[in-house]
Amino acid sequence: MTITFGPHTIRPGQVFFRSALSYGLVNLKPIAPGHVLVVPHRLVPRFTDLTPDEVSDLFQSAQTIGRVIERQFRGESLTLAVQDGPAAGQTVPHVHVHIIPRRFGDWTNNDDIYVDLEKSSVARVDNPERPPRSEEEMAVEADMLRPLFGETAH
Amino acid sequence: MTITFGPHTIRPGQVFFRSALSYGLVNLKPIAPGHVLVVPHRLVPRFTDLTPDEVSDLFQSAQTIGRVIERQFRGESLTLAVQDGPAAGQTVPHVHVHIIPRRFGDWTNNDDIYVDLEKSSVARVDNPERPPRSEEEMAVEADMLRPLFGETAH
Repeated sequence: MTITFGPHTIRPGQVFFRSALSYGLVNLKPIAPGHVLVVPHRLVPRFTDLTPDEVSDLFQSAQTIGRVIERQFRGESLTLAVQDGPAAGQTVPHVHVHIIPRRFGDWTNNDDIYVDLEKSSVARVDNPERPPRSEEEMAVEADMLRPLFGETAH
Repeated sequence: MTITFGPHTIRPGQVFFRSALSYGLVNLKPIAPGHVLVVPHRLVPRFTDLTPDEVSDLFQSAQTIGRVIERQFRGESLTLAVQDGPAAGQTVPHVHVHIIPRRFGDWTNNDDIYVDLEKSSVARVDNPERPPRSEEEMAVEADMLRPLFGETAH
């Protein structure tokens, strides 16, 4: 089964979570350890395009993933954000939720996380300021996360 | 019926949307026109505390509200954000989703919106840099919005 994220085909080894209508993806250019994405399987650009069932599944998945990611990466809080459309900084035209574990003092200015978020803006997009991780590094992270969700190894 | 937002009691005149489990609230210190909040009726601090039904209702409400708010305030996109816990900038310990209409060029640096978001961080919190709106100004906005959701006037 092919997993798509906007125009990109995602390697199954980078997926650590699957629900009926969504999947969890490790990040090519995370802005913090444990920064992951939750994506509806259906490729639509805007939040308004999702069916009610997709909205429910996406955010119930985000809740499940956030709970595990926060504990696993020793976070104290979470940032959840959707850049819903290009004027909001969305660069991959496929709805996705950013989930980022947070700790007190992790950014000198608490808000700078969002500057970094928009710079990296997303996994698949070139960002000259941040070197992409290797396929192997991402696969290792996904392999570590998958069992935490009861998923079998890839 | 008393509407609460963290430790605060909300005047019904500031509420423009109600669903079974959530409500939509105009903002005391919006960072942009149309910056509103969606809040679960049940007072819980963290996203993980919500039941699956509450998660579904909250984000289906956010979708409905976002669609209307974007059009009404002539946005081109939307930012949706949850500051889930104090280390993520949450100041009112009651789960809430920020919805902010976005336009190209609305912030000189696209990311500065988040700096403003965290400053204002939330409706009910003192922020010396931004004067709060009057009760009347908020009520006027809520009165304008309410019919767009098929709600009767307060």
